Amino acid sequence: MRTAIGVDLGGTNTKTAFIDESGRVIKKKVFSTPAPFDRGAWSATLKEYAEALKTSERAPCGIGIGIAGLVDPNSRRVLHAPNIQGIDGWAIGEDLEKAFGLPVKADNDVNVMALGGHFFGPNDGSKNIVCLTLGTGVGGALIINGQLYRGSGFTAGELGHITINEEGPQCSCGNHGCAEAYLGNQRIVRRFKDFLRKDGNSIVTDMAGPDGAVTPHMIYEAAKKGDAIALKVWEETAAHLATLLSGVINLVNPDKIILGGGVANAFDVMEKPLWDNIHKRALKAAVSGLRIVTSKQGEDAGVIGAAALVLKEGAA
Amino acid sequence: MRTAIGVDLGGTNTKTAFIDESGRVIKKKVFSTPAPFDRGAWSATLKEYAEALKTSERAPCGIGIGIAGLVDPNSRRVLHAPNIQGIDGWAIGEDLEKAFGLPVKADNDVNVMALGGHFFGPNDGSKNIVCLTLGTGVGGALIINGQLYRGSGFTAGELGHITINEEGPQCSCGNHGCAEAYLGNQRIVRRFKDFLRKDGNSIVTDMAGPDGAVTPHMIYEAAKKGDAIALKVWEETAAHLATLLSGVINLVNPDKIILGGGVANAFDVMEKPLWDNIHKRALKAAVSGLRIVTSKQGEDAGVIGAAALVLKEGAA
Repeated sequence: MRTAIGVDLGGTNTKTAFIDESGRVIKKKVFSTPAPFDRGAWSATLKEYAEALKTSERAPCGIGIGIAGLVDPNSRRVLHAPNIQGIDGWAIGEDLEKAFGLPVKADNDVNVMALGGHFFGPNDGSKNIVCLTLGTGVGGALIINGQLYRGSGFTAGELGHITINEEGPQCSCGNHGCAEAYLGNQRIVRRFKDFLRKDGNSIVTDMAGPDGAVTPHMIYEAAKKGDAIALKVWEETAAHLATLLSGVINLVNPDKIILGGGVANAFDVMEKPLWDNIHKRALKAAVSGLRIVTSKQGEDAGVIGAAALVLKEGAA
Repeated sequence: MRTAIGVDLGGTNTKTAFIDESGRVIKKKVFSTPAPFDRGAWSATLKEYAEALKTSERAPCGIGIGIAGLVDPNSRRVLHAPNIQGIDGWAIGEDLEKAFGLPVKADNDVNVMALGGHFFGPNDGSKNIVCLTLGTGVGGALIINGQLYRGSGFTAGELGHITINEEGPQCSCGNHGCAEAYLGNQRIVRRFKDFLRKDGNSIVTDMAGPDGAVTPHMIYEAAKKGDAIALKVWEETAAHLATLLSGVINLVNPDKIILGGGVANAFDVMEKPLWDNIHKRALKAAVSGLRIVTSKQGEDAGVIGAAALVLKEGAA
């Protein structure tokens, strides 16, 4: 069976794994991404782990890399990765090909997750898919006519920076009222604190650590237990998410929306208000036939998707 | 030279023309669309005009039809056309094929305009194009990888119904804060009246007819003459347009945006504030290399695009 090395290069950690043709993780390793980034040291560590993971039965046919940043998949060069200091401009594909003697493909991390979800996810015949990752930031990617759509400058799919309220709060990108300014982790926690200040009590305050830090996960756990404030946080979050998705639905008319990232774990408490608000906002014809699901690949989505670059995309 | 009959079926008028392979209008006719719609009478009138337009040198190779509504291009059936009463469900392609003895293609009117603009417009190498029509309503279409992208249920490209302010005014579609609720003709006129009420004088009041009716065209003419209120109307309109386009730019990362419809004629007074606001809102990497232009096909865009369905799309 063909295998590939998938690499998920993030600002904090680098994950690498052997992935087989069915998208299964055979074995994986995680190491800290050097900060500031050191190309030689990082490549050497990657090679060491790859050698250790390799066996005679699974000689890899290539290396796929997903990177938290803007990547040119043709030149396989990192254009801009704001969270990995010192990597901008690196022709990572060329250098790793020399170091490993294997073909290398590289792309943005959310793009490869979308590819992995498309090729290794449930084969339901979906051709047009919107992928949205909800975490510290809000990312996205588009599958159009069964292929990853990268846009003219490889930046397509930035769902987090679609404006949902032109008079809204400022976003990290400088714009006002981006979806990310309503759906990012910090905003969800702030929403909780605002409700708490007004309405009094929540069991989340007992769940918070000694430093008082609250996470979306705690708010989710509380909502599952029926905590009124936590439920309101997810209802309001779902309403903003619905505004974003309705616009994207009207523009793209996809078969399927896949939600990933940490906040997507709260999908079960958001699902009803999300659909209620989408039905209020989106065009009826554009919603008919649409499904919204969560990613099933969890924390391995990055390495699986990276391997899909090699094992699936353009491999026919 | 190959020719085709292009038909632009709107709520008020039907335009038909012979179009040659270069997208040139050879000859055209306009007649009133019957209301309520009468399939037999409409087809008979169309046939009469087509026969009259025909000469021995230009036997058409097919008929392309653009319809103001939702159309299934495969079954060539009208799914929903809110402004053409009595047409919903009509298998227009099949019926016209019988009546004319020619292959017939049918699609949404904005989709075919986008096709026409792509195939017959300036050949500048653009592959990913966003088309936006600004008039009574706000429509749109997407060219992705050089092909018209229709979406999973043929509804893609509804740029007018992307929310730009989730707390905004109600739109005709029922949603709140759609782009159309800021950019449609009526809203532009209302914006003018609001400014006039606050700020006093405008030469537009002298341009209005005896019934006092104001049009976007008058506001444009006044802006060209330096009328302060008219200029403010286009500045504010451009700012809302920039919010819409910035979101679409961040999602689609196109090479080019083509603006069509009546309001696009005011592009010269909107261009500067439009770009200023796009630079404030859109991601830098997504904007680099982007061009925004107006459609050059004017009022013939519909018939030219309809002919492109036959002469160009899938004709290879």
